[in-house]
Amino acid sequence: MVSLSDVARSAHVSKMTVSRVINHPEQVSLEIRTEVQQVINQLGYVQNRAGRALANHRHYNIAFILLDNVDEIEPYYAHLLIHLTDVLQAYGYTLEIRHEHNFDVTNVDGFLISGVRHSDYNALRNLSIPVVIYGSEPGITAVDIDNTIGTQLATELLLKQSYQQILFLGMDVDEAFEKNRENGYRQAMQTAKKPIQIYKLANDGHVSREFLIGLSLMPKTGIVAATDRLALGALRACIYQGLSVPHDVGIVGFDGIYVHQLAEQSLTTVKQPLKAIAQQMVHLLLDELSGKTVQSVYIVPELLIGETTK
Amino acid sequence: MVSLSDVARSAHVSKMTVSRVINHPEQVSLEIRTEVQQVINQLGYVQNRAGRALANHRHYNIAFILLDNVDEIEPYYAHLLIHLTDVLQAYGYTLEIRHEHNFDVTNVDGFLISGVRHSDYNALRNLSIPVVIYGSEPGITAVDIDNTIGTQLATELLLKQSYQQILFLGMDVDEAFEKNRENGYRQAMQTAKKPIQIYKLANDGHVSREFLIGLSLMPKTGIVAATDRLALGALRACIYQGLSVPHDVGIVGFDGIYVHQLAEQSLTTVKQPLKAIAQQMVHLLLDELSGKTVQSVYIVPELLIGETTK
Repeated sequence: MVSLSDVARSAHVSKMTVSRVINHPEQVSLEIRTEVQQVINQLGYVQNRAGRALANHRHYNIAFILLDNVDEIEPYYAHLLIHLTDVLQAYGYTLEIRHEHNFDVTNVDGFLISGVRHSDYNALRNLSIPVVIYGSEPGITAVDIDNTIGTQLATELLLKQSYQQILFLGMDVDEAFEKNRENGYRQAMQTAKKPIQIYKLANDGHVSREFLIGLSLMPKTGIVAATDRLALGALRACIYQGLSVPHDVGIVGFDGIYVHQLAEQSLTTVKQPLKAIAQQMVHLLLDELSGKTVQSVYIVPELLIGETTK
Repeated sequence: MVSLSDVARSAHVSKMTVSRVINHPEQVSLEIRTEVQQVINQLGYVQNRAGRALANHRHYNIAFILLDNVDEIEPYYAHLLIHLTDVLQAYGYTLEIRHEHNFDVTNVDGFLISGVRHSDYNALRNLSIPVVIYGSEPGITAVDIDNTIGTQLATELLLKQSYQQILFLGMDVDEAFEKNRENGYRQAMQTAKKPIQIYKLANDGHVSREFLIGLSLMPKTGIVAATDRLALGALRACIYQGLSVPHDVGIVGFDGIYVHQLAEQSLTTVKQPLKAIAQQMVHLLLDELSGKTVQSVYIVPELLIGETTK
């Protein structure tokens, strides 16, 4: 049986430091943490979670609550969950998944929540343990991408590539992220003194394809789509009408998980940085747990250049 | 504070029955369980997990271990995880996710494991708590779809629709599920006394598109693809070569999550029944926990008819 002393000796650190890496990783520098963790893995030292929990009055368990319906689950949740698991594991925490409005605090130190609606905010504000949501809401610690900057970057790219009219293909939902994506387009167009054209549809490639075929797109059109599904439909409308992409029409989507790669031409898209989102969510939650004051984080997304822009 | 007695009174059952629904749900009929659970939810009775765990020598926590790399995560894992969470929640268990070879049994009653390789089997056989894997392996309790029947159904459909030559587009990996999918095609073709044509490629739509364009497909060809990604590439090769699908070429994919809907024409495909897989995995694990002898379950998949067959 490998002991804590064995780990300390091999890692050339004190037993106190090993204990801190295990029990309070947030108090140790990333360098030392990585080194000690490597030795722990090499020697096969098993951390006794129950003993550690008892000693620290913590459960070392975080619950991720997904409030979306199963039909609305986007495939990128698989990646978000795995990244969250990886980051929490590195800090010695486990991740529990819940799929209902279950804010029972037994055995958990904090909540990470996705799919929050307005009706949930009061419940969240009254919880006795820290909460970080994936999304945006004043008064609750949140991590999100900066959706406004995302579509702003998309619109600016199409403007720079001298498409004549640029339209926005939005989702017909009353959600903050959708409004922000619309605003990013609007701001870039206003700055460029170009006329604004906004359409709102169901988030479905077949719907956007039919709609754009009905619109009879002109050459030199740019399309900023609020999702990759909408962008995929736009690409198919162009193919149907014999318009060449990106020569005649430029298209930029949003999300950058799976869908953009499955298109006939890989989509240029605003990429959700899921690993960075997972890291920020965990860091904010652990900071709150250590009693620090934290602020919501909005990550600036980047364009992933594909074959639907020049 | 709502008590156990309050729940018993409202549900018109004994306190013993309420206790059993909470502590040993597997011993109570689905009907009574549903009724009592509804009363528990209505009254807002909070189950004290810590007390229950102490009383029953159980943790009421199951760990799902995903052994795939993050790059290999297929989008359907999001659905599988949510279904597992839902089923376990109904039995009063939590689901913990792990993403490494971490078989630490502290705080868990059993493991559900996906992405198992041959090198893991010895470790799994020596665990002190029950294990159910998603996949197939003699000697370990497993839940999987019957991959052989899946491609057999696909091949028989194409034979019935009188495509002249039917080829199999497989994945170039040395895995049991791939061999079984190949065998299902092979058996159906042997029964029909038709010549066998098997190709093996990387699981990538672009690769299969290029490959099939190089092959110059003839009209009246049927294609059984081992994945929807390969089927998507096949559809695109047909579009490129001016072959009409399903008139000239019939295509059947495999998996039925996301990819088949994103194709130019919705793919006919063998659907992974993820909800049924999740239910079976949990039932087998809970049966093992109650000391029952269990056997691996292979679920017969169904064809989802899309627009790539007649």
